This record gives sequence, C-alpha cells and structure tokens, in this order.
Amino acid sequence: MDPRVPSTSELHFIETQEAGSIQSGLYLEQVALADVADAFGTPVYVYSTAATKRACRALHALAAPQGVSVCFAVKANSNLSALRILAELGCGMDIVSGGELLRAERAGVSGDRIIFSGVGKTADEIEQALARDIHQFNVESAEELHLIAAIAARSRKKAAVAIRVNPDVDASTHDKISTGRKGDKFGVDYAKLPDLYEQAAQMQGIELVGLAVHLGSQITNLDPFRRGYDRLAQLTKTLRANGHPVSRLDLGGGIGIGYDQSTLEPDLGRYFAIISETVGSLGAELTIEPGRYLVGHAGVLLTEVLGVKESEGSPLTVVDAGMNDLARPALYGAFHPVIELSQCGRPRRRTKVVGPVCESADDFGWHNLPALYRGDRLAFASAGAYGAVMASTYNSRALVPEVLVDGDRFKLVRRRMTVEDMLDLETDSAWSGPIAEKICPNELVSLK
Amino acid sequence: MDPRVPSTSELHFIETQEAGSIQSGLYLEQVALADVADAFGTPVYVYSTAATKRACRALHALAAPQGVSVCFAVKANSNLSALRILAELGCGMDIVSGGELLRAERAGVSGDRIIFSGVGKTADEIEQALARDIHQFNVESAEELHLIAAIAARSRKKAAVAIRVNPDVDASTHDKISTGRKGDKFGVDYAKLPDLYEQAAQMQGIELVGLAVHLGSQITNLDPFRRGYDRLAQLTKTLRANGHPVSRLDLGGGIGIGYDQSTLEPDLGRYFAIISETVGSLGAELTIEPGRYLVGHAGVLLTEVLGVKESEGSPLTVVDAGMNDLARPALYGAFHPVIELSQCGRPRRRTKVVGPVCESADDFGWHNLPALYRGDRLAFASAGAYGAVMASTYNSRALVPEVLVDGDRFKLVRRRMTVEDMLDLETDSAWSGPIAEKICPNELVSLK
Repeated sequence: MDPRVPSTSELHFIETQEAGSIQSGLYLEQVALADVADAFGTPVYVYSTAATKRACRALHALAAPQGVSVCFAVKANSNLSALRILAELGCGMDIVSGGELLRAERAGVSGDRIIFSGVGKTADEIEQALARDIHQFNVESAEELHLIAAIAARSRKKAAVAIRVNPDVDASTHDKISTGRKGDKFGVDYAKLPDLYEQAAQMQGIELVGLAVHLGSQITNLDPFRRGYDRLAQLTKTLRANGHPVSRLDLGGGIGIGYDQSTLEPDLGRYFAIISETVGSLGAELTIEPGRYLVGHAGVLLTEVLGVKESEGSPLTVVDAGMNDLARPALYGAFHPVIELSQCGRPRRRTKVVGPVCESADDFGWHNLPALYRGDRLAFASAGAYGAVMASTYNSRALVPEVLVDGDRFKLVRRRMTVEDMLDLETDSAWSGPIAEKICPNELVSLK
Repeated sequence: MDPRVPSTSELHFIETQEAGSIQSGLYLEQVALADVADAFGTPVYVYSTAATKRACRALHALAAPQGVSVCFAVKANSNLSALRILAELGCGMDIVSGGELLRAERAGVSGDRIIFSGVGKTADEIEQALARDIHQFNVESAEELHLIAAIAARSRKKAAVAIRVNPDVDASTHDKISTGRKGDKFGVDYAKLPDLYEQAAQMQGIELVGLAVHLGSQITNLDPFRRGYDRLAQLTKTLRANGHPVSRLDLGGGIGIGYDQSTLEPDLGRYFAIISETVGSLGAELTIEPGRYLVGHAGVLLTEVLGVKESEGSPLTVVDAGMNDLARPALYGAFHPVIELSQCGRPRRRTKVVGPVCESADDFGWHNLPALYRGDRLAFASAGAYGAVMASTYNSRALVPEVLVDGDRFKLVRRRMTVEDMLDLETDSAWSGPIAEKICPNELVSLK
C-alpha cells in the first residue's frame, strides 16, 4: 500500500500487461483514473461510490447501536450523486441554505430527514423549509427564533426547533473553521441560553425540541468533543431542572480525517464512547452531522502537468488544477497528498506542485514525486470534501466537472461549465432608470 | 464627504424629500443603490462607469506623455461591460487564460492589443492565442518557450515573446499575492535569463521582443517598483551588450488602492516618475498592466442585514453576502469599508459584520455603523476588483449577479446563476466502462 494513499479511499495501483510490458496505473475501485482523464479531460473530480459507502457504514455501525442518527453535512459535497448514495444508506441531511434544501429534495430526501442549520437563514429559506415540514431548525439567535416563530404562525405550522448553544470550547482546529468559541458568530451564548429556551417554550409556531452544538470542522483531537458534549449535558440538566423537556440533542459534525501521514485519523470508537459517556444517559434523541468524514477520502482531483520549472534549484511542477478548483490549500494552508497516475520507476525527488492561477497562493505544497513531464497526470487525494463545492471560475477558468465511479463503471455527474456558459449569464438587458420620482432635480437637497 | 467612501468611487449620499421628510440615501453616480437592490435583490455587485473611466483617464494622462501603453489585467474584473469601457478608452488587455482571451474578443478587443501572461498556459490556449495573432506572450519558463516555439513553427506563425524575469524583489504585500521573489513560481531566475534569451533569439517560431516583470498585487509602497524596474533596466543593458535588441519592456501591474483610511493611495505621479527614472531612457516600448487600480474603487457589493446578534456584549451583524460572494477577507484578511444605504441618524456603534456561510472565515471585520435591523442594506465599498471574479456557489448559494451604472441608468450585466442553473450542470449521463481490454482479469498482475 502506498503510504500516501489513505486506506479508506479505494485508490490503488494495479499492474497490467500492455504490449508486453508491465504498466502500473492508479485506479479508483476498478476504474483506471487515466481513462477518466481521457474521457473528460483535466482538471476533474472523481468520487468513489464504494469509499463513500464504506465510510458511511463504518459510522452507522457505531452510531446505530447507540441510537445516534446521522445527517450528512451537505456543504461538504453537494453533488446529487453523493447525496443519493448517503440517503440510500439511511443518512438524513444537514443543510445550510435554500439551495441545499433543493438539492436534498432532488436527491429524494424527504423533509422529515432534513435539519436546517446555519447562521444566516433568510425569510424565504425559512418558508421553503416550513413548507417541506423539515425535521428541525437549528436556531442561531433570539432574533432568528422570533423570525421563524412569526413565519410559522403565519403559515399555521409548528417549526421544530433546537437552539444552538455556543459552548465556548476551542476545537484546536484552523481558526477559519472553528465555530464553538466565545465571540464566534455561531450559536447562543451558553449563559443566555436558559432565558431564551424559556421564551421559546412559550412561543406560538415553535415546537421546542432540544439543543444543538457544533464545534468546528476537521477536528482530529477528540478532547474538544468531550468538553463540548459535557457542556451540552450540563445545559440539558439545567433546562430539565427548570421544567423543560429536552428531547433532542444535535451533536454537530467536525470529525476530521488524516490528510497526511502525520495526522492520525480520529478513533471513531472513542468518539462514540465520548458521546455515550457525556450525553448517552440523558435519554434524548441524538444526531451527528458529519460531512468530511463521509466523503473526504472518497474523492480525488485529477490534474495534468503543464510543465516543470527549475527555480533556484528546486523543481516547480506546474499543473492544470488551480486554487479555483481546489481552494483548501490557498484558504486554509491545507495539504492534499499528490499521487502519480502512472508508476514509472523514475527516481523520486521533492517538488513543489503549483497551479496556473496568477497568485502565489495557488500552491499545493511540497511532494515527493518521480521526475515529471508535460502531459503526465497526477491525483490530489482526499479531495472529496470541500473540493468541488468551493470551486470558482477565477481567472476565467471553466468550472471543474465531477465524475462518479462505481465498481468498474464511471459517469459524468456534473459537466464542465465552460467560459461560454459563464458568458451566457452576461445579459445584454435594457437600461433601467432614471427613476423620475426619486431623483427629481428640484427635490435634490444637497450633494455631500 | 464620508471618510469611509474613497473619493474616486462615485459614491455619495444624496438627500431627497420623500413624504415631507428628508431622506439621505447612498448613490452610485446618480443611481440610488436601494433601487438596484429593489430591482435585482441582494447580494449584488454594482459598478460605476464613471469611476472606471475616471481611473482609466487618470492613468492615461500620466502614461500617454511617457509613451506607456496600458493593458488591463482582465483577471481583476472580467465582466464584458468593464472590458468594453476600458477598451473604448484605449486599454489593451492582459490575459491569463483562454477564457480571458475569449472574453477580450467578445468585448471587441483585437488580438494586437492582447498580452498573454500566466504561469500555466496550455497548448490549446497557446494555439488559440496564436490564431488571433496576439501582441505578445509573456513567457514564464524555458519549457514554455520551447512549447510556444513548437506550436508556432507548426502553425507557420511567429509568436512575439517577452521573457518574464523574476527580479527577486519583495513587494512587501500579502504573501499570497507577491510574485517577484526568488522561489516564487513566476518568471525566469534573473541569473539564468541571459542564457535563455540567447536561446530564444535563435528559435524558429519566436520573435523575441523583450522582457516582462510583475512584482505582485496591491502594492502601496512604491519602493519595490523602483527596485524591480532598476533590475529590469540592468538586465536590458546586459542583453543589449550581448548584442540583443530589447524593444519592449512589460512593467506588469500591481498598483494598489486604499481600502481603508490608514492606507494611502499610491502617488501615481511618483509611480510614473519611477518608470521614467529607471527604464524611461532605454528607448523601449513600455507597457503597464494595472487591474485593481482601474476597477477596484468602481464597484460595490450590496447586501442586506439578516439579523443582529448580541454575542458576549459585541453586536454581530449577519448579512446576506458571504465569503463565497466576496472572498478577499477570508482569503487575504482584506478589509472593505461598509456603508449603510440609508443614513438614519441612529447612533453609531462598533459591530462585526459576518456572512451567512458556516465558517468562521466568513467575517468582514469590525465596522462603525448605525444600529441596524433585519432588512437594512449595506454596501461593501471598493469591491470592483477581485470581487465577482472570485465568487463561488459554496454552501449551494446562487452566484452573485452584476449590475452596471452609467449616469442615472443601471442595467443587469450578469444575471444571478441560481441553484437550478447549477443543477442543470449535473448530468444524468450513461455509465462508461468497464474498458474490457484494460481490465481483463487475467491481465491483472497484482493489487497492492
């Protein structure tokens, strides 16, 4: 097993005989990734059905005996194919926007399996979610609670609501993805929550069901989970002592994955032991909301080498995937292993892998790779989460497509959006204004 | 004049009488930004024709007397409306991709006004650019030079080529956008350039015209320009002493703008004095490639307040624009002034402005704003460069639209791309494979 390849990824080298010589190529399940690149060009994301299912089953195997439900955090990978695979295996969906609600619906997920999280729900989004009778709103603030109550009352509905508490726990992850510390924008201050809970219990339009917490993303040290869930348990007891039933606890997501050999994958057994030890005896319905854990290792981003530059003695490998296709390295300083699609026996050397975008941030770090030439292909591993969903068309580059592999078959599940497609959005609409009644010169009092 | 409003932005408050009371609203040129938000919703980018023209004319007024040509860096804002305005005023286009080439063409810019920069040009892109007989390729490496020469020879064309030198000058800007330091991925090492120039001069298919340099982006301290252009002048003299004509010098872009009151706008007069003093007497055709300077202050991003949270005593204002719409704060820690669309006389207070995306990075920093309520509207100022071009649909949010203002008129120049549009890209294509001749079981030698 190549040490750069995560064991759960369904990536492996397969040796085949071609024209008498032995070739060793990188496969995802039983599909040669070179065939995918041939069929659809590069850059392209490729997802493994089997790896997604494996991660999902591993989680369910531990969650089900404890009665913990799993809702997939759609923001990690919202491609309909991923949603369908996970929904079929029994996952609900954790959404953060009206767009994700629509995606969950298109993937055949019914409203009663949907939880709506997120710090900035619009009135439209709340109405749409109410119309679909979703399982639960995770409410982020007093103001949002009032808004949901008002919209629900107007629609003669009851919105099932859990209130998200900010437990003031530092998840020791990257600052940009930590979400459970004091002063973060997420959740209701721990100290203020009992008062708000009391108010919520009285509101028409609100069916108050419990509490939610979410500590951050890519958490590989499990201690913050223990601290956060301990705080949640305390709060639950306080609220119950105040006479409130707290029937549901949403434990959020955040389980990290190992992107490099130095980061250990969190021990899932220990994670569920923490759940059991902290909130397991409260008799509440428990839900977790993993995203990255379910799809992270199941995806690769294929790219082609555009050239190799010797700069100050260090080789720079320029590839055709950029920070617009895979933003995590530029945004979070994240690392993805890079694997050659064809093992060639050439000696390895350290090379920096960089993209074609005109920014120094378009840099995928140092990798140990065989001598490479224009036209050679590489795979960024563990790119199934927060990959395609964060892609843009920066530098007027086409939007990266997505391909699904299942056994020995593969198919395009999102086509490449071309620059022509982008130009079609540029309308040649008619001019509006002047809006006479508003900018009538004699009403113009002063121009500062 | 509101101190938060850059003087060159065409933003101002206009007082009007409505129903007997005086209202003070934010206008871009003579268009009330509230009318734009009413017409197209939020978030939405709005650009000023007059501000774009003013910046362009200010630059030309100093560039033309020195014979310096101006090529707009399309990557800063590639909307066709911006390209057309700048092309009409005499700008050429500095492109970095085939997509930008197509955009420049659609905006009516002929090939002889186009310079192709960028560290990762594909063979297809080089062919397209050659077919349009572009003015110049800025070549980034020996390998790229050979590729262009080969494609040009095959097409029986001569590619006009300038070689980009890495001058090893620290532009003292953000690490992610500095591009002229040793070990950066950009350009050819200074010491190696004379040898490569010698080779290039012999190549069929190459018309060697000169040198290019680009130090970085958002440079507000002009000293790096002096150091970089001094190095370019030295190199020019060295090459000429070796017997090479060096007829063109591309000075790159990078002129910064003031995003906050503490950052002084660079003195353009001094910038052109530096050009004159360093490379002015060399008798070469000079070109600069500004992007941000031409369009940065000309754009705003309008947003609506979704709610105000009191968190630990500090008000958090949650708005409907996120890091997916305006990535610079999340990516570079950048600051954009925030201005209320309606002056209301409410007392001001410090508030953090945050977006709805489920990441702590979705944070636009602290601002001094009047007490705000759901439905109030705000403008992020100086968002005309590296705004819409970097936008994504992360969190399954619709892609932000763009509106152009000209005098008292406004029109949609890119419509909002909805989640339905995104879902249309998700094809339900047929499965491919298995590719029998490649994965025939008896050829499968080993599975590592």
